[in-house]
Amino acid sequence: MLIAKVVGTTVSTIKDEKLTGRKLLILRQTDETGAPFGKPYVAVDTLDAGVGDLVLTAHGSGGRQTALTKNSPVDAVIMAVIDHLQVNGEVVYCKE
Amino acid sequence: MLIAKVVGTTVSTIKDEKLTGRKLLILRQTDETGAPFGKPYVAVDTLDAGVGDLVLTAHGSGGRQTALTKNSPVDAVIMAVIDHLQVNGEVVYCKE
Amino acid sequence: MLIAKVVGTTVSTIKDEKLTGRKLLILRQTDETGAPFGKPYVAVDTLDAGVGDLVLTAHGSGGRQTALTKNSPVDAVIMAVIDHLQVNGEVVYCKE
Amino acid sequence: MLIAKVVGTTVSTIKDEKLTGRKLLILRQTDETGAPFGKPYVAVDTLDAGVGDLVLTAHGSGGRQTALTKNSPVDAVIMAVIDHLQVNGEVVYCKE
Amino acid sequence: MLIAKVVGTTVSTIKDEKLTGRKLLILRQTDETGAPFGKPYVAVDTLDAGVGDLVLTAHGSGGRQTALTKNSPVDAVIMAVIDHLQVNGEVVYCKE
Repeated sequence: MLIAKVVGTTVSTIKDEKLTGRKLLILRQTDETGAPFGKPYVAVDTLDAGVGDLVLTAHGSGGRQTALTKNSPVDAVIMAVIDHLQVNGEVVYCKE
Repeated sequence: MLIAKVVGTTVSTIKDEKLTGRKLLILRQTDETGAPFGKPYVAVDTLDAGVGDLVLTAHGSGGRQTALTKNSPVDAVIMAVIDHLQVNGEVVYCKE
Repeated sequence: MLIAKVVGTTVSTIKDEKLTGRKLLILRQTDETGAPFGKPYVAVDTLDAGVGDLVLTAHGSGGRQTALTKNSPVDAVIMAVIDHLQVNGEVVYCKE
Repeated sequence: MLIAKVVGTTVSTIKDEKLTGRKLLILRQTDETGAPFGKPYVAVDTLDAGVGDLVLTAHGSGGRQTALTKNSPVDAVIMAVIDHLQVNGEVVYCKE
Repeated sequence: MLIAKVVGTTVSTIKDEKLTGRKLLILRQTDETGAPFGKPYVAVDTLDAGVGDLVLTAHGSGGRQTALTKNSPVDAVIMAVIDHLQVNGEVVYCKE
């Protein structure tokens, strides 16, 4: 899984019918302190995450192992909202 | 999923029989404003997308979760045409 | 899928039994004009492609959705030989 | 599989229900001597690994081939704790 | 598939039970002449390959399409030992 920050939202009228009602959020991968890097990607949100949240995303077929994404043409899902991250015994990120 | 711009088309006479009638488009990944970067890749179009459209592509086995791509030797599909993208509360891309 | 050029061939005596009789070609990814870049990779050829051909390769489980690669320990297949590629309305590659 | 070092832990209250009770650790890929490089990623721990351990992680659907991760929305699992690594006949890493 | 050189071995006492008796080798990807580059990765050996051998590795679910790796938490397998490689009509690698 990747640590990522929710940075935005997408709107699509024309889409695969299995995506009707699905929330597709824009994310950027972050390091363990929540600092984003690299280019944005998009994942299905099944946990009502919001812009600014630090989350974990599962990719590939792992992105379809939820009730809302099963058998859909998607390859990434938000499967956890992060409360805090600890590295080498020190808290490096804490949700506000 | 990746945000990508449709930049071109492919024509192949010799191909796997399951690809007969499938439209294979050339795309380039973009950032959240629709600016392309990196090398081109190819995805099956099931939504009648056109050159210049900003779309989302699902990769891997996710690319075969549509009626038109099921069981085909493909690894990417266009599953949404983007209307607009919003980042940190600001609209950063809007379809013309 | 990736656009790639067939650049060579492999010979292996010791291999998984499901690969007996399979042609494993060496490819390099190319841009949309057929110019190769990056390191070589290997894919199963099911279309009798030849060295110099520009092809499309499907990766991951998509590489096993053909009659010749089903259930084999492979992760890439040539599933189309490219005739021509068009980018922004202009032909940028044409098979000789 | 990747060689990786366990560097930290994650805590999430809001998560997919299949992740209840799962330990999600932060890792960084290492070279063959155990020297980390690159950005962190997260994997499910099924072996009671601890911070500082050098481990192997399996990715993609391979991450769900354990009793604890089956059918869960995850894409990486720790499937071995490394005792020692030998390169070109020389021991380059040994667990303390 | 990737062209790779076997460079070392791993030993793990604590591991998923399905890995009991499996040989996990350290590899580095190579170019078509057998020159290694990049960071090491680990694959299951089902062909009794040895350190120094040039091999092909299949990744992802393709790594589990052998009798020895089926349903195991692994994502890469050695599925061929290379005898020779030919690029543009010239032999560029030949097993000693």
